[in-house]
Amino acid sequence: MRMTDIIAKKRDGKELNQKEIEFFVKGAADGSIPDYQTSALLMAIYLGGMTENETTHLTLAMAESGDILDLSSLGDKTVDKHSTGGVGDKTTLVCAPIAAALGCTVAKMSGRGLGHTGGTVDKLESITGYKTSLSREEFFDTAKRHGICLMGHSGSFAPADGKLYSLRDVTATVESIPLIASSIMSKKIAAGAKTIVLDVKYGSGAFMKTPEKAEELAKSMVKIGKNAGRNTAAVITDMEIPLGNTIGNALEVKEACEILKGKGDKRLSDLCITLAANMYALSFGVDIETATMAAQKSIEDGSAFKKLCDTVTAQGGDIKLLTGEKEFGKAESILYFKAPISGYISKIDSYLLGKAAGLSGAGRETLESVIDPSAGIVLKKQYGDFAEKGEVIAEVHGKQEKLDGISEFLSQAFAFSAELPPERPLIYKIIT
Amino acid sequence: MRMTDIIAKKRDGKELNQKEIEFFVKGAADGSIPDYQTSALLMAIYLGGMTENETTHLTLAMAESGDILDLSSLGDKTVDKHSTGGVGDKTTLVCAPIAAALGCTVAKMSGRGLGHTGGTVDKLESITGYKTSLSREEFFDTAKRHGICLMGHSGSFAPADGKLYSLRDVTATVESIPLIASSIMSKKIAAGAKTIVLDVKYGSGAFMKTPEKAEELAKSMVKIGKNAGRNTAAVITDMEIPLGNTIGNALEVKEACEILKGKGDKRLSDLCITLAANMYALSFGVDIETATMAAQKSIEDGSAFKKLCDTVTAQGGDIKLLTGEKEFGKAESILYFKAPISGYISKIDSYLLGKAAGLSGAGRETLESVIDPSAGIVLKKQYGDFAEKGEVIAEVHGKQEKLDGISEFLSQAFAFSAELPPERPLIYKIIT
Repeated sequence: MRMTDIIAKKRDGKELNQKEIEFFVKGAADGSIPDYQTSALLMAIYLGGMTENETTHLTLAMAESGDILDLSSLGDKTVDKHSTGGVGDKTTLVCAPIAAALGCTVAKMSGRGLGHTGGTVDKLESITGYKTSLSREEFFDTAKRHGICLMGHSGSFAPADGKLYSLRDVTATVESIPLIASSIMSKKIAAGAKTIVLDVKYGSGAFMKTPEKAEELAKSMVKIGKNAGRNTAAVITDMEIPLGNTIGNALEVKEACEILKGKGDKRLSDLCITLAANMYALSFGVDIETATMAAQKSIEDGSAFKKLCDTVTAQGGDIKLLTGEKEFGKAESILYFKAPISGYISKIDSYLLGKAAGLSGAGRETLESVIDPSAGIVLKKQYGDFAEKGEVIAEVHGKQEKLDGISEFLSQAFAFSAELPPERPLIYKIIT
Repeated sequence: MRMTDIIAKKRDGKELNQKEIEFFVKGAADGSIPDYQTSALLMAIYLGGMTENETTHLTLAMAESGDILDLSSLGDKTVDKHSTGGVGDKTTLVCAPIAAALGCTVAKMSGRGLGHTGGTVDKLESITGYKTSLSREEFFDTAKRHGICLMGHSGSFAPADGKLYSLRDVTATVESIPLIASSIMSKKIAAGAKTIVLDVKYGSGAFMKTPEKAEELAKSMVKIGKNAGRNTAAVITDMEIPLGNTIGNALEVKEACEILKGKGDKRLSDLCITLAANMYALSFGVDIETATMAAQKSIEDGSAFKKLCDTVTAQGGDIKLLTGEKEFGKAESILYFKAPISGYISKIDSYLLGKAAGLSGAGRETLESVIDPSAGIVLKKQYGDFAEKGEVIAEVHGKQEKLDGISEFLSQAFAFSAELPPERPLIYKIIT
């Protein structure tokens, strides 16, 4: 098999077979195929697309390039969840405990944040004592006992994807539906859960700018998941405005607890319930209405919150921070951002807020940066709220020296209108 | 300027400007742009095409990456000729002396053969004593005195093209009209002649398989030439069957002399006259009918043949080989290939004949191979001729050990029919 023939075949719009795809994924990962050939193929894929078969083969070949987690000892109700990147996205902290309360097993490895997006592991580490590094035994034990365990990545999932992604990044071939879909799904499939629920976001804070593009990506990922023998669904959601009222690690843990206690932002709560209900419905084969009612009930009766407390305790975290008996550490300073004019808030740019939160100390610019767990943003007004000129609409928490210049970002992030802006429905579609 | 932006722009079907093209050609050649980025761009160009402006900028940027020959001291009637590769193509040996006899100056550097195609320099070196390595002074002096000088390449023409070509070769991006056109024209423009006549071939022995594709390439090259301030024309010719009756170095020189003496294959003679007439017509601004008559006359009155003898003498060659007073060295053996059945010859596959001639010792497999000047093929029957079963239709000249197995190639190269096969017009179109 020769790489030039594979490139030429794809270039001419023909379908690559499984052997050809495995050949190039293996070769790209182990360096036996030079980068200049891989990048020519990536451009041909970008411009020519991939069939469902090709995308599935690509995903599986990348998944098989590294460790594959075998969760079968935890039963067949293992569930996983993935969001295509968002700002202030603390949904895992809410829907994982709900799913666990409903009988699913959430044995999940999560990532750290980079750039303008946060990571679940960073959020959990703002809970004093919480261990995100566990041995395999601790991970399986905790999941078996409580139905939930949230830890950091261990092992090497889909290293071929890492290799291809770094090439795509420098050859203008990132924004390709089949390449994005296979990149995400290769890691999810390697992570081992039987059921996968995807939160595919669109809007200014998301990778996909329109709901149509998000739907295309969602459909591709759901097909791949099913072809790989996983129960898969995707919820397509609006990320034009941030999710909930907080961005930042401890701030988001606190907000997640509020949601689990039946309080907090309605939009965020609805999304978490939808995601958890889909996990439960797919896992247990119940209909989505029944699943949604069960998810709501798990909040009302406290069973979901208890699951979070159980796993935090098991992983060494101080649950008094969750129950409210203790307060999270406070940031050194708070910058109060005030409405420059009176009006309805008609835009909150998630991307710019994410950048601002990162600058306040809540995020990382490089993998080596140290995070300030108390830093971040609290929205005092949401999209559609009316603000009087001079009224505080957002707080930025952080070290004093980090807060300089952040007002400029916020000034650009908000817009105001005389009329009530149109409602933004949260959920565009659910693909199953 | 960032290469990823340039790749993305081309990927999205937008036109690259001169600065962007110069940036990537320079970076690809000097290594400051990594090959994986260049190859992604090449694939985007392959799939998206290039506008006339882009192709011209690319050509000029590649020409300017190396030496540019200044022929202006030889006047403004300098002419050059390029063939897009053929089998048994000895046209330069004929049309250059004709053009010189008509007052043009042919100061031309030619290449060596590789693979199944021959090179003018190899052919000339079969003339005892002929020097293909000359100093710049000798080159200009000979051209000034005789209006013709044919030598091997000296200096480095369009090294950026060499770099891009080697990448295209391993990334399935060779067969792209704008990339082929700019590759050829960059070297022609660097070679300095004011007038360029192109022989663009189609058919089994040629790079372009159909006349339509050849026309597309021809039009692109003529536009580039004109945009670069050169008089340019392209003759689109059939290469489905070989040109003339010989393939091999001394054999072809001998055949070229026959043509210059008004004898030999009519089809070959017509093509040489057409090419030379176009050189003369473009250079002197005369109409093509007048130019064609003048070219024919230069053969009839012996002035064209005298030009070849003059330059061969000036370059140290023994012209008794050209006049027939001496014979070229004979090959060790001759294989007589006989018609396996009776019939009209309805196919002569140029590519296979070229391969067979190469195996006989007339060509090179690698740049280091040594050529046997006496080796090659002589066709005793041409396309459309009737052959009795057992009649010799081709001779293969060469060392005995090289001739084994060549019959197999020839068996595949010829086909026979009961009816006279359709005529194959030599010239499809002339693009000016």
